Amino acid sequence: MKFKIKKNVLQEKLNDVSKAISSKNIIPILTGIKFELTKERLILTASDNDITIETYIEVDKENLTVDKVGSIVIKGRYILDIVRKMNSEYIDIEVIDGNKILIYNSNSEFNLNGINVKEYPVINLDLTTDPIVISKENFKMLINKTSYAASNDESRIMLTGIDFKINDNILECAATDSYRLAYIKLELDNKYKNIEVVIPNKNLLELMKLVTDSEGNVEIHIFSNKVIFKFDEIIFQSRIISGTAGEYPSISKLISENSNFVVTINKYDFYGMIDRASILNNDRDNNIVTLEINKKDMKITSMSLEIGKVEETYVIDCSEKIKISFNSKFMLDSLKTIDTENVKLFFIDEIRPIILKEENNDNLLQLISPTRTY
Amino acid sequence: MKFKIKKNVLQEKLNDVSKAISSKNIIPILTGIKFELTKERLILTASDNDITIETYIEVDKENLTVDKVGSIVIKGRYILDIVRKMNSEYIDIEVIDGNKILIYNSNSEFNLNGINVKEYPVINLDLTTDPIVISKENFKMLINKTSYAASNDESRIMLTGIDFKINDNILECAATDSYRLAYIKLELDNKYKNIEVVIPNKNLLELMKLVTDSEGNVEIHIFSNKVIFKFDEIIFQSRIISGTAGEYPSISKLISENSNFVVTINKYDFYGMIDRASILNNDRDNNIVTLEINKKDMKITSMSLEIGKVEETYVIDCSEKIKISFNSKFMLDSLKTIDTENVKLFFIDEIRPIILKEENNDNLLQLISPTRTY
Repeated sequence: MKFKIKKNVLQEKLNDVSKAISSKNIIPILTGIKFELTKERLILTASDNDITIETYIEVDKENLTVDKVGSIVIKGRYILDIVRKMNSEYIDIEVIDGNKILIYNSNSEFNLNGINVKEYPVINLDLTTDPIVISKENFKMLINKTSYAASNDESRIMLTGIDFKINDNILECAATDSYRLAYIKLELDNKYKNIEVVIPNKNLLELMKLVTDSEGNVEIHIFSNKVIFKFDEIIFQSRIISGTAGEYPSISKLISENSNFVVTINKYDFYGMIDRASILNNDRDNNIVTLEINKKDMKITSMSLEIGKVEETYVIDCSEKIKISFNSKFMLDSLKTIDTENVKLFFIDEIRPIILKEENNDNLLQLISPTRTY
Repeated sequence: MKFKIKKNVLQEKLNDVSKAISSKNIIPILTGIKFELTKERLILTASDNDITIETYIEVDKENLTVDKVGSIVIKGRYILDIVRKMNSEYIDIEVIDGNKILIYNSNSEFNLNGINVKEYPVINLDLTTDPIVISKENFKMLINKTSYAASNDESRIMLTGIDFKINDNILECAATDSYRLAYIKLELDNKYKNIEVVIPNKNLLELMKLVTDSEGNVEIHIFSNKVIFKFDEIIFQSRIISGTAGEYPSISKLISENSNFVVTINKYDFYGMIDRASILNNDRDNNIVTLEINKKDMKITSMSLEIGKVEETYVIDCSEKIKISFNSKFMLDSLKTIDTENVKLFFIDEIRPIILKEENNDNLLQLISPTRTY
């Protein structure tokens, strides 16, 4: 293998695939990045067995010229640092004596021990013929508006994922840790067969780092045990959480319940009130604040015997009465994903969840369970 | 105590004094900030027994109006958060029922448990009549150019400080961890009596966060067991490392040794070479690179049996020969404090320290001991 490549291009692509490398991987070969050079392109692959990322650079005079095709596996952490810190426009890379890699320009020469590509696991990244197609912008929106509500608790593995459910031309995404829930519905341009998968939230967060703000689509290829996302020059594969079909909690009942009354309030004002009310117990796991509406007066209160108490007051356009307590962190997380100036709060009673929606958008719904206080 | 204060002013001053608060302090009262309100000013004090910071806000219509004088101690971490997150231009603060503190504006009300000011330790912040006066700019330069070389190893307590030595109108600062040394000499505007103190480096780093880039001087008031820095509206007191006089290692012999030859090299190029040469062992404590000069050719090399090797090459204007190994991290730290385009490297032989100087500035000197390699 021997080629000359533009430093910035290689650096960007190495950055992309390196998202799949875990420094804690117990399989040594997976700390490496696989380089495969053909006459047409340089293909880079990295995997931690949970996610796999593949990308490529096309051969052309400006970016990549090939002297001799071949392949090798290079330790990920070093190659990234080396390429970033080399100070020339182009870098030469060459395999010598079987598994030695030379990386050089006119003043620097790195001589690294590589690993034979035969030792790298075979990863099948074949695609389906009927991917779900969705714009990058919408895809990012789906994840950004649900991801925060997924659980980190591995003992309830199903809740550590985001549920994707396709029915005809409707895509529904949901995430819940059983205390709160985020749900979003999106109309697709085409019709697809019905399918439901739960994809690990942490993998989707890695994927988010790669999906740029540029125009274009994401193709979602769903298999029985994995899912592949394809966009730009990137293929991103993730396992899915097994036993998915129908095992994710049913949320349709939760999100269809009729509310008793609704309060519309400026999002920033409401965020500020909750944020201040939680100062005095922001180091606790259960960061409880109480919201009380009494005619046109909304109060948010919180207290800690040791430290003191807070009371926030706000005039609202609502003549109802309710007193309900909840985890302030959950409310702040939800409000962060609201993109409208005002947020709508739907109340049933003090033991049923509060529902949040954006103004004029019924496709996004968030739900926060109240906390019992004594 | 009762007063109205401009939020931004209070926030800034609380930020300043809070640098002295350690959340891990085992003396509960020292997690608080002392508020003392007189008819003329509000004085804020915080201390962790090692450093004490005091600042004040003058009474005037725009910033601070007093209703009733008094004093109280408020938990530092909560008051800072509260003031930062309140959304009004002015904040009212009032002590009620002895030790309760009300902090409020039209929509927020915080009711905190305070502590009686009598429980706060008495800290004497009286000044001397003959402080050493130095511009803020020069003071920052002294610390920034020496601090990195001080030791973190508490078992050699003297080396965890920066040595200040005044002789007539000459101030010399030095820091060393015994493997490397930074030294700077500064001519003062006035003559002072001879004195030497070692001030804890970590306290000086906290002090640096408070010394702004604005015009003005720092007064240094030296006592037998402590030192007070006075600037702007701030008084900053630090302990000194005891047994100071004459116990700091003598450095005059080290810094006066004649070199055999000198190499002048572009600082950025040299930094890049060392930086790249240390990639392959940047997770080790002893991050050794070898510099070899052979006529007009300078090579920096490094190797790791497991990973591979690096060679950096550079053409210099020097016809000497030397091969010397050193810790690359020490060299990078030193180069970061060099403010000129070129750096001068003085060599004696392969077992004596390398000396670094800025171009055209003999007042700054840095020294790096070589590492023996086999």
